[in-house]
Amino acid sequence: MSRVRVHNLSVSLDGFAAGEGQELEAPFGHAGTRLVEWFLHTRAFNEMHGQAGGSSGVDDALAWTWKAGIGAEIMGRNKFGPQRGPWTDEEWKGWWGDNPPFHTPVFVLTHHPRPSLEMEGGTVFHFIDASPKEALRQAREAAGGLDVRIGGGPTTVRQFLAEDLVDHLHVAIVPIVLGRGERLWDGLEGMEQRFQIESVTTPSGTTHLTFSRP
Amino acid sequence: MSRVRVHNLSVSLDGFAAGEGQELEAPFGHAGTRLVEWFLHTRAFNEMHGQAGGSSGVDDALAWTWKAGIGAEIMGRNKFGPQRGPWTDEEWKGWWGDNPPFHTPVFVLTHHPRPSLEMEGGTVFHFIDASPKEALRQAREAAGGLDVRIGGGPTTVRQFLAEDLVDHLHVAIVPIVLGRGERLWDGLEGMEQRFQIESVTTPSGTTHLTFSRP
Ligand SMILES: NC(=O)c1ccc[n+]([C@@H]2O[C@H](COP(=O)([O-])OP(=O)(O)OC[C@H]3O[C@@H](n4cnc5c(N)ncnc54)[C@H](OP(=O)(O)O)[C@@H]3O)[C@@H](O)[C@H]2O)c1
Ligand SMILES: NC(=O)c1ccc[n+]([C@@H]2O[C@H](COP(=O)([O-])OP(=O)(O)OC[C@H]3O[C@@H](n4cnc5c(N)ncnc54)[C@H](OP(=O)(O)O)[C@@H]3O)[C@@H](O)[C@H]2O)c1
Repeated sequence: MSRVRVHNLSVSLDGFAAGEGQELEAPFGHAGTRLVEWFLHTRAFNEMHGQAGGSSGVDDALAWTWKAGIGAEIMGRNKFGPQRGPWTDEEWKGWWGDNPPFHTPVFVLTHHPRPSLEMEGGTVFHFIDASPKEALRQAREAAGGLDVRIGGGPTTVRQFLAEDLVDHLHVAIVPIVLGRGERLWDGLEGMEQRFQIESVTTPSGTTHLTFSRP
Repeated sequence: MSRVRVHNLSVSLDGFAAGEGQELEAPFGHAGTRLVEWFLHTRAFNEMHGQAGGSSGVDDALAWTWKAGIGAEIMGRNKFGPQRGPWTDEEWKGWWGDNPPFHTPVFVLTHHPRPSLEMEGGTVFHFIDASPKEALRQAREAAGGLDVRIGGGPTTVRQFLAEDLVDHLHVAIVPIVLGRGERLWDGLEGMEQRFQIESVTTPSGTTHLTFSRP
């Protein structure tokens, strides 16, 4: 059975996975790159973006697990871009240039659907207004038996966790107090009971937790 | 210079250090013992309560640092007991029996002062209505050059952190989503910048963070 997986989701000590004030010049809002610093340094991140180099330690090993066996991604509209409300600019094709790192169908959840976008390298963005269950049905169909990644942001991941649709969750806890933004854990009281949890702290100061369905 | 220290403060993934609904039968509210399970297993905890046995690994080593060099504690009134508002029962002498594990003066912050309580073994509870700075002045005077421990709960620790009065903070992150209760990190945006931070995950699944003033 194909699994539903979340990877490399960076969260602050106070539980925020996105800053306040996301905009074109600040994709992570006031968080800047503080939440994802550990990830930007890895070979996995560089490879994703067609670059060489980077660290190859434990952070990197965990970051790589993002890739293998994924046949489709589901993401929220706010991860796709900084626009809110009805699209004023359908020229926007995501943060990732002509050849995004996904290389699979990507289902973008939004209350404002628009035509699909076929990019280089196999990424196709589909914009759908759908419940988590329905989005997952479509993504599974597109994934051809492979796993489905829930790509974020927190608003999207939270919905899939709340409906118990996630089989594997990798969270990276970063020792900062972000203060404001989008909380990951709200409405998920007791969710740890559904998972086997492992954790490890790496020299970057990041604590990686994996939640796997037993 | 005597330092101000916080130890063994257990926090959930969503940032709660106390559950909701604290009462006589449930000192941690709906959290039960889930936040402090790692601590209850240690030799340090048992020794504190006049018992033998317990684990002697990394959790225990960190738990012990609670003890050395402390000359006074400051705690919140809700840590002292389950009563709220004006005291209806001055018979209440804390959760810890006739010989509490502190063995120093303990300043209990409250808007409802009452006469001091001299216990066995050197613990004296003083009930004071004071700002963090003033409470610290009194505790330092009583500590005779030794360090002052801020004993919790979260409402109290938060005040001392907000006023930048803490030199050393040891937090234990427990992989549970508590959902509700008293949050530790509120109002402390960016506080990590004032500290050197180290962290380690132990086999119990607990991640210990130490924040030390550089
Ligand atoms: N910490 C990390 O590792 C990480 C990972 C990924 C992203 N991020 C950051 O997270 C931020 C975005 O996260 P976010 O929580 O603000 O938003 P998000 O989850 O990316 O997107 C939320 C939006 O998607 C649409 N949507 C979500 N579920 C829907 C549904 N069931 N039906 C229809 N529409 C739905 C809604 O937009 P409309 O109603 O406007 O259509 C909603 O406001 C960005 O700053 C990004 O950089 C962080
Ligand atoms: N997670 C852990 O490791 C840990 C550690 C210790 C305790 N705890 C738990 O934490 C809970 C208690 O924490 P809490 O955050 O609810 O409360 P708390 O910090 O123990 O006490 C807060 C109360 O103390 C009084 N107070 C605090 N600051 C004051 C000031 N500056 N001036 C005058 N009075 C002041 C006020 O009471 P009044 O206005 O009513 O007088 C206030 O409501 C308990 O459940 C305890 O078991 C957990």
